[in-house]
Parts: sequence; structure tokens; C-alpha cells
Amino acid sequence: MKALLLIAHGSRLPVANAEVVALCRRLAGRLAADFDLIDCAFLELAAPGIGAALDNCIDRGCQDITLLPYFLAPGRHIQDDIPAIMQEKRTRHPEVRITMAPYLGQSARLLEVLAELAVAGPPGAKGGPSGPQPH
Amino acid sequence: MKALLLIAHGSRLPVANAEVVALCRRLAGRLAADFDLIDCAFLELAAPGIGAALDNCIDRGCQDITLLPYFLAPGRHIQDDIPAIMQEKRTRHPEVRITMAPYLGQSARLLEVLAELAVAGPPGAKGGPSGPQPH
Repeated sequence: MKALLLIAHGSRLPVANAEVVALCRRLAGRLAADFDLIDCAFLELAAPGIGAALDNCIDRGCQDITLLPYFLAPGRHIQDDIPAIMQEKRTRHPEVRITMAPYLGQSARLLEVLAELAVAGPPGAKGGPSGPQPH
Repeated sequence: MKALLLIAHGSRLPVANAEVVALCRRLAGRLAADFDLIDCAFLELAAPGIGAALDNCIDRGCQDITLLPYFLAPGRHIQDDIPAIMQEKRTRHPEVRITMAPYLGQSARLLEVLAELAVAGPPGAKGGPSGPQPH
């Protein structure tokens, strides 16, 4: 069984965490053929935490778990914090493959996404989006 | 004259700020036909700050400035901090149009970008990217 965990930082603002949950649901629909279990987890400030989400995947029989960081910058969260949690779980569950996909900021496709937003202009502008967009 | 400012949070890690500068250079190449001046600015922890970058655009004769937030979450930076800086400059320079494009996290296209990263798997995996990708 394969699992995918969308990893976000977590926010004190419930609306920000809810956006991640909603995005994760859409991602689950998009990747239903590629993963048996798709969920989100938060580094801090919101639940479930990454460790708890990994435990849930393992308890449900997943042997191959991919963490997908919803992060833009290569900071200490990407370099230290998430790898440390992964390593702890690998040590406890050596039979489970736990890997990290490139973080969002590494995608070459962000350039096109940014170019599109820049040209669309402010929300409500002619031809531009009128508010938060569905993912 | 039209200007575009790519707004990032700013990091204590120089490599993270350098990624934003590099991304902005590529964005400038991509949007050279749409804007006369394209630069990046940081909310905190790195230079130039947003206020200084806006002043630079105005000093160079830009009358229409778009801020494009390189942010994923609708937190206080998007809701309060960046709008406050914009409002201060609007008050001082009422002849200049200063607007904010949707922040990156609002793009409906992020779903496809994330799906692609998830399926590619960890850096170095077969068929996957082998490290940080050029934007």
C-alpha cells in the first residue's frame, strides 16, 4: 500500500489550515490511481502532526509513504525538521519506505503559474480571478 | 511604465533568498513584454524591503505597480502586513496605482504542480528530478 502525505507548515489561522485540507482532498481525487491513502499533516500549530500522520499510515498497512512538502523555501524545516521526523520513523519501522518528494518551491512549473497570476492582475480585474480560486 | 514586484517573506538562510532572486530573474525574462520593470522584495529578514522596492519603482517613473505575493497561505502577511505597506505608499503617491495580484497559494494550477511532484517521487528516483530544479 502506498501513501502520500501533503506536508504544510501549519498556521494559527484556521482558514489557512482549512485551505490545506481542501487542497489535499482535491489532490486525493487527482491521484486516486497512484496512492492508496492520501492525507495532509502539519509541521506545527495544527493537527495531525507529521509523526501522527506517519503512524496512521503505518498502522493502516502502508509500506511506501511519500511526504510532499507544501513549502516554497529550502529552510530548516525542509533541511532538518522534516528529515528528523522521517528518520525517527524509519528507525522504528525499518520495513517501511519513507521518502520526501521535492518541495513545491523546487518545481520548474511555478514560473508559469506566477506569470499567469501577474498578468491576471488584482482579484476582480478584467479577465482576472475574482477571489480565492478553487484548487 | 508598469512594474511587477515579486514579494517573498525573506529568510535567515541566504540560499532561500537567492532562490527568490533567481526565480525573479526568470520571471523578468518571461514577462519582459508585460512589464517595464520587474524586481523582487522581501517582507522581512532580507533586502530590499517592500517599501524600498516600491520607492525605487516610483522614483524610476512607474505609475502602475503590481505586487505578486510568493506566499502559500492567507495569513497576516497577506491580509495585513503587505496591504498596510501598500496603503502607506498610495497615500504618499496618489498618482501611482499599486495593486496586489492573487498570492501564489490561490492559483488553481498548484494542484497539477503538486500532483506532478508527488508522482515523480524523491529526488534521484527513476524518472524524477535529481535535485533543485531550475525555475
